[in-house]
Amino acid sequence: MPFHRFILGDEGWRIQGEEVLFANPYIEVHRVELTSPVRSQSFQWTVAYRKGAVVVVPRTEDGRFLLVRQERVPIQASLWEFPAGQIDEGGKHSWEVICGAGRREMREETGYELGVSGEIISLGHFFSSAGFTDEHSHLLLMSPVVPSPQGSAHDSGEAITEVRGFTLGEFEGMIASGEIRDANTLSAYARMTAMGLLR
Amino acid sequence: MPFHRFILGDEGWRIQGEEVLFANPYIEVHRVELTSPVRSQSFQWTVAYRKGAVVVVPRTEDGRFLLVRQERVPIQASLWEFPAGQIDEGGKHSWEVICGAGRREMREETGYELGVSGEIISLGHFFSSAGFTDEHSHLLLMSPVVPSPQGSAHDSGEAITEVRGFTLGEFEGMIASGEIRDANTLSAYARMTAMGLLR
Repeated sequence: MPFHRFILGDEGWRIQGEEVLFANPYIEVHRVELTSPVRSQSFQWTVAYRKGAVVVVPRTEDGRFLLVRQERVPIQASLWEFPAGQIDEGGKHSWEVICGAGRREMREETGYELGVSGEIISLGHFFSSAGFTDEHSHLLLMSPVVPSPQGSAHDSGEAITEVRGFTLGEFEGMIASGEIRDANTLSAYARMTAMGLLR
Repeated sequence: MPFHRFILGDEGWRIQGEEVLFANPYIEVHRVELTSPVRSQSFQWTVAYRKGAVVVVPRTEDGRFLLVRQERVPIQASLWEFPAGQIDEGGKHSWEVICGAGRREMREETGYELGVSGEIISLGHFFSSAGFTDEHSHLLLMSPVVPSPQGSAHDSGEAITEVRGFTLGEFEGMIASGEIRDANTLSAYARMTAMGLLR
């Protein structure tokens, strides 16, 4: 069963049949047979279902962006990225659940937490690869963030080797050079720019 | 076998074993056992292998960005996106192969082609969800583009319902409002902004 259905945006989709081709705790692959608003003849599609996720932009009082350097197994490389993680709760995610997951991921991965006078700004959500998976990530800007007395607490399944604050100029230089190259961080930057939050 | 291995960025990764859990023409799911530069004890990971892809930013002579409105089955919604498609050739993709795939996808999905005096600017590549899949997309800016005498030619597997040119202001408004919400389009915009190509 799909992890969530809240993102369905349009009327006129009809599932005719659905077969689980593969499932483990990380991914479910289904063959779906359906009709759509512009395809009245039923057709088949392979869909990879994944949990929803949250990506946090932690910004410090002096305007730096915190990035974590993380080993990414599928590409056998380490990337500089914003902290992120899956949301374990199923169903439609409330603002409280999204913010709770975001604060937890940020604290665990960076050792920072939202300051007492800090605020959380929604940057919306995005789909990582909408042609093959329903995976989506909520984007949150948290500002200002401060070191947490609890420190960081990395999952055993993660390998974060460094946490560092970057100025806006350094951050944009890493995007321009291609050093930053994950959809989470690029999408969060796109939204902040278009929303006029950076300048 | 993974579709490509060219993206491996770091030394020090050792595959100890690999088992195919599921495979069809669209996705291969493997259980990989490996060590990494910072994890000397072998551990397991589920990896979804996918073909590489190309995303094209088609910009017209008068500075408009062409977007296609496309039905996306996994999320049962239609999105405004830059034209994109998978690269069928395996192995490491040369600049010629990437540009060829990009020109083909743009022509098929929008009915436009690169103008005679047009140029193709690389915006690098990105990973759609590096924690679970090796999927990556090359980003190309093509400018100026002009209507092709051949017109468009949509794949039977696609459902593109509209093609339209948007000014930079309209395009940024759609990103800010959340109407544009796919990693391809957001990542291309992020790179163009950080590289100083928009203003």
